[in-house]
Amino acid sequence: MSNCELRARRREFLDEYARLKDLSLSLDMTRGKPSAEQLDLSDALLSLPGESEAGGVDTRNYGGADGLAGARQLFAEILEVPPDNVLVGGNASLTLMYETLARACLFGAPGGSGPWSGIKNKKFICPAPGYDRHFTITEHLGFELLLVPMRDDGPDMDEVESLAGGDDSVKGIWCVPKYHNPTGACYGADTLARLASMRAAPDFRILWDNAYAEHHLFDDRPALGNIAQLCKEAGNADRVVQFASTSKICHPGSGVAAMAASDANIADARAHLAVQTIGPDKVNQLRLLKFFGGIENLRAHMKKHAALLRPKFEAVWEVLERELGGLGIAEWSKPRGGYFISLDIPDGCAARAVQLAAEAGVTLTAAGATFPHGKDPRDRNIRIAPTFPPLDDVRRACEVLAVCVKLAASE
Amino acid sequence: MSNCELRARRREFLDEYARLKDLSLSLDMTRGKPSAEQLDLSDALLSLPGESEAGGVDTRNYGGADGLAGARQLFAEILEVPPDNVLVGGNASLTLMYETLARACLFGAPGGSGPWSGIKNKKFICPAPGYDRHFTITEHLGFELLLVPMRDDGPDMDEVESLAGGDDSVKGIWCVPKYHNPTGACYGADTLARLASMRAAPDFRILWDNAYAEHHLFDDRPALGNIAQLCKEAGNADRVVQFASTSKICHPGSGVAAMAASDANIADARAHLAVQTIGPDKVNQLRLLKFFGGIENLRAHMKKHAALLRPKFEAVWEVLERELGGLGIAEWSKPRGGYFISLDIPDGCAARAVQLAAEAGVTLTAAGATFPHGKDPRDRNIRIAPTFPPLDDVRRACEVLAVCVKLAASE
Repeated sequence: MSNCELRARRREFLDEYARLKDLSLSLDMTRGKPSAEQLDLSDALLSLPGESEAGGVDTRNYGGADGLAGARQLFAEILEVPPDNVLVGGNASLTLMYETLARACLFGAPGGSGPWSGIKNKKFICPAPGYDRHFTITEHLGFELLLVPMRDDGPDMDEVESLAGGDDSVKGIWCVPKYHNPTGACYGADTLARLASMRAAPDFRILWDNAYAEHHLFDDRPALGNIAQLCKEAGNADRVVQFASTSKICHPGSGVAAMAASDANIADARAHLAVQTIGPDKVNQLRLLKFFGGIENLRAHMKKHAALLRPKFEAVWEVLERELGGLGIAEWSKPRGGYFISLDIPDGCAARAVQLAAEAGVTLTAAGATFPHGKDPRDRNIRIAPTFPPLDDVRRACEVLAVCVKLAASE
Repeated sequence: MSNCELRARRREFLDEYARLKDLSLSLDMTRGKPSAEQLDLSDALLSLPGESEAGGVDTRNYGGADGLAGARQLFAEILEVPPDNVLVGGNASLTLMYETLARACLFGAPGGSGPWSGIKNKKFICPAPGYDRHFTITEHLGFELLLVPMRDDGPDMDEVESLAGGDDSVKGIWCVPKYHNPTGACYGADTLARLASMRAAPDFRILWDNAYAEHHLFDDRPALGNIAQLCKEAGNADRVVQFASTSKICHPGSGVAAMAASDANIADARAHLAVQTIGPDKVNQLRLLKFFGGIENLRAHMKKHAALLRPKFEAVWEVLERELGGLGIAEWSKPRGGYFISLDIPDGCAARAVQLAAEAGVTLTAAGATFPHGKDPRDRNIRIAPTFPPLDDVRRACEVLAVCVKLAASE
């Protein structure tokens, strides 16, 4: 494009931006929250469980630190592990992840040689773009964050192997293996095999946050390999700790979270949990069991979520294609599930585009948030979270975003 | 008593013990659990909240790390502090206590000079007999446990002052200020004043577990001074962190717990919580608010608990008085609230009495459990937990216990 053409196009973008700004919009696309309509799908929970008995257990009273048997079974099916290797806890899987790492810092982890807090320059691998709250946990606990680029089938495994293999102070890696936040990528079989068998510290931990295990947007259900099985076969049974929750299945404000791991890891967690608590909220676990009955109903329920979410994702894709397609200034992900669309624009433009959008009344996830320490080294990634606002707002917000991307790119 | 008389009495005790053993009893008096009848009082909770809206907040969705405004208000009234100084969390106050100390170990506490995990020989004051789970938390986190005797109006303050005043590695003290577990003692005004103003490390913490704040057995409600106010007046606002929960008010398996502390402590906890979780179970907090409406209804509800509990406590006292009164071998507490009766028998006899009771089918809290490291230096204290079994079982279990005490004392 000649300078003259560019100036003409830029004037067009400015006019369009001014017109959108005049609408005085106030749209929030910051976080991956379910919409009110999605939450309505689970409102029967609000008057459950009705009674308190679960397989001979009075859920109202103290005890049962492992969680209810039925709840362990349900998460065992989601995570494809034996129920004995599952502990069901409170309302947030993020808390279970924090605790797993905080315990390792205070006490060490099975296979290791002492508390991680005693290790100077302890490090954690952060595939990016990724989930900001993951990175924040490891930053808060004093880890150095090692950025590894995300690919279409998982983190760049050459880099992961190189980092983990040479340095015992590299203590783990964050993984969202299915519908990765924010790109929507699913880990491939080769990625899993390499993660399970690579050289790493004896107390290296894969924090396998399978947050979107059942969160398909379409009818296809991509198979994810069994990381627990692969780790076991590679002689690294203790390497992986898996997490899941009902937060984006039912109500995030009152969910049930679970962790799954090897016998040794579960025994270790159980020993610490016995000190930390008398037991999780068993009534809420029973509520979940009464609501779903079993995994089949849960999966049928997730199709109702998909029916609400699909049009929002399609609206984003449609607007991005219409406004930015073929311009060579933007690439975006087209995930088959999960909660996010990842948008890459020219280097150095993301923060500016997000700022322009904010000035036009559209709040997006802060540019850089998907990278360690909130800093995108190329300043090009924007996370689009289309689930919470109504469909029309999603479309409108994307139109604003598209103009802002064009403006930022033309500056 | 002559040797001859003693032998005769001992034969009597043995006959009685043999007769009771023949009954093949199976009674569990180990833990301070509410009975099923007490839990029934709150069964309306099992179909609440019905709807999800609480003062403009959709409790179903993410967010609200501080807890619902109404829940903060309710606990503010229980703990007699401003609602802004309250955080409402998940289902277990024990977990909030653990986290308070685990955070201090990992990150330090306001006023201190760094993480406690870096302090060799860090110590914690444990008034005993006391609550085993408290002692276990500090033992697990690597504190040396300093035993201080419990008196009728709180811990022996001469000893507490002497321990805390001379050594900055003494980091705190466990307190159950109202109806202390297991003696039922209530802290006196002088104890509170001294705790608030004594010399201690700048990051010394009073863990004020007001577990029985509303748990009166009789109509009198002994006033407890305001420890937060006293600490503030003494220039030690950050010294105390208070805890309460609804575990023994509604359903322990699905309670709501809260902590209260100074502005600086709350800001510190909030900063860490923002990393640990996206928010507590708000729907469960709303459930509680719908059930009670306000503090008056909660207090009326506690009178129903008292009506169920009083006869059990009275049965224990009646049996102990009848079987052991005037023998000079036993003293027991007569608390006006709480969950326990503490029984002191001759030195060296408690473990034996508990063992004899177990052999006769009555399981009691392990002798020594109420002391640091589970070791009663005089082996004389037995914790009686009369709340869980039906009234007849409580009476029968105490009859067995009384015989076992006489047998053990006569050995």
